[in-house]
Amino acid sequence: MDTVNHQFRLAARPQGMPDRSNWDYAEEPVREPADGELLVQVLYVSLDPAMRGWMNDSRSYIPAVGIGEVMRAIAVGRVVASRHPDFAEGDHVTGLFGIQEYATLPADGIRKVDASLAPLPVHLNTLGMPGMTAYFGLLDVGRAQPGDTVVVSGAAGAVGSAAGQIAKLKGCRVVGIAGGQDKCRLLTEELGFDAAIDYKTEDLEASLRESCPDRVDVYFDNVGGEVLDAVLPRLARGARVVICGAISQYNSREIRGPSNYLSLLVNRASMTGFVVFDYADRYAEAGREMGAWMASGQLESREHVVEGLETFPETLLELFSGGNTGKLVLQVARA
Amino acid sequence: MDTVNHQFRLAARPQGMPDRSNWDYAEEPVREPADGELLVQVLYVSLDPAMRGWMNDSRSYIPAVGIGEVMRAIAVGRVVASRHPDFAEGDHVTGLFGIQEYATLPADGIRKVDASLAPLPVHLNTLGMPGMTAYFGLLDVGRAQPGDTVVVSGAAGAVGSAAGQIAKLKGCRVVGIAGGQDKCRLLTEELGFDAAIDYKTEDLEASLRESCPDRVDVYFDNVGGEVLDAVLPRLARGARVVICGAISQYNSREIRGPSNYLSLLVNRASMTGFVVFDYADRYAEAGREMGAWMASGQLESREHVVEGLETFPETLLELFSGGNTGKLVLQVARA
Repeated sequence: MDTVNHQFRLAARPQGMPDRSNWDYAEEPVREPADGELLVQVLYVSLDPAMRGWMNDSRSYIPAVGIGEVMRAIAVGRVVASRHPDFAEGDHVTGLFGIQEYATLPADGIRKVDASLAPLPVHLNTLGMPGMTAYFGLLDVGRAQPGDTVVVSGAAGAVGSAAGQIAKLKGCRVVGIAGGQDKCRLLTEELGFDAAIDYKTEDLEASLRESCPDRVDVYFDNVGGEVLDAVLPRLARGARVVICGAISQYNSREIRGPSNYLSLLVNRASMTGFVVFDYADRYAEAGREMGAWMASGQLESREHVVEGLETFPETLLELFSGGNTGKLVLQVARA
Repeated sequence: MDTVNHQFRLAARPQGMPDRSNWDYAEEPVREPADGELLVQVLYVSLDPAMRGWMNDSRSYIPAVGIGEVMRAIAVGRVVASRHPDFAEGDHVTGLFGIQEYATLPADGIRKVDASLAPLPVHLNTLGMPGMTAYFGLLDVGRAQPGDTVVVSGAAGAVGSAAGQIAKLKGCRVVGIAGGQDKCRLLTEELGFDAAIDYKTEDLEASLRESCPDRVDVYFDNVGGEVLDAVLPRLARGARVVICGAISQYNSREIRGPSNYLSLLVNRASMTGFVVFDYADRYAEAGREMGAWMASGQLESREHVVEGLETFPETLLELFSGGNTGKLVLQVARA
């Protein structure tokens, strides 16, 4: 096979916001699969805040991407050639295919995707990692109960919009924090949130006081920084703060710690981190419940699809500038 | 009765470290008890870091002390006159008697103390709030298990020295963080800690790496600030951080938040606050276990007794300068 595979490889570790200089746009011939391997044509790549962490050379829940390696990314694609009995040419699959046009890799860890259930990008969103993250973070780590007041930051993003909708479906009062009027309108008018706060223009503390008169039982935090500090003093007794991410801090040289953390003491509250991969053996359970909600129109999945592998360095930055509403997906090839 | 009662009343809320100007040294005649009340002569007063928080006019787990009010404090004393059937003259009792020589107050919330079990100051320490705080914080909030590595800050203080010794008794490996060689020597040579770190002279991160090769399962934090930030990156997977206090921050205008809090995410760890008063219905259970340990010489209770009510403003500050080893107690009268 003499097809060329274009790829983005990590050229240098970024300080702060990554730019073109951190990437090497490379090409190499597509490699035929060996025994037990698949050759996958990548169709859609998921762009996630966690990718910024994978670029840093520090201890984390997963090794850093090495200098010179293809950038790690979750993607969906189509099997072009299979040397594994469980997969056939034409199957739609999802896995860590990376930022490239083709991936040749062992079949372990690759899952088939049912394209008839939902469009492929949805399998990178509500039926993929972001949906699983929202589901287990809210229900398992946050132990959200009917009647709880749940606040979600980054609420118009992939994880946040799922977390808020799931909280509503579970009988909670839900307040979303997002940047900009359009996102806030989406939350209240289309996704069923009880209230939305525009952190860019509103006085966060005053708005939280008004929209959470009974204080906050569960805070699902995707952003960290000032927003986390504004919510902490509003915690209810026994509140659960779920640390899902801190996108406002990922490009900072110095992380801003939550200076109001002693609210945890006063309110007998907890702040707990989690990594969705730990729930792998329960993905199917969550998928069934969320699939049913989607089928009945109770759970909306929004994707923000940008076309063209070569736009990757700039498209990734939309995550940090707040350019996307819903899951940011890079389309690499026509399905 | 024409006895005079000397008292310290809160004159003004402090900014930063409190000094004489925040107090009004007042006197008033001792008031006779009404029906259902007791008149108690105060013998020993407990000086606790939490008192600094009670001086601030902000929402907490207990109302702030009002301007002009006698400063709140837990104490032990002797009943001088009783108008309640459960108490008799001469009984030793403990309760919120305040920084004063005599307290006339309702009998509810006052507990009898068995002076034959242990000297009176011990009832303000291991058999009092600090002991209860250590016991429930470590075992209930921190869920310390045999084999766990437990790190305790403020380890030579009242709560810290109890928490560390209880952890040892429960089969944990215990590392204490304290200020100064004398305190560190006390921890390892007399209280059975496996290792001690002098945060004033040692490189905290390097010492933690060395003394906790298997990382940290439970961190019992009494101090906050830099020490909290140094321990966070050393957490083990599933670690529990117990937020008991933050004495390094109580006199700061701006609290320093833990900038390494994302270690909670990476390590699937939690940070949980608690207030010992919530465990009131289990104090007896803890008292029995700790009393037995003390009787068999397995649990040491150290008090640092300073004589003279009038020294209160300066003696209180020893808590923040690290002047005391063991529980700081003010002796108001001879027992």
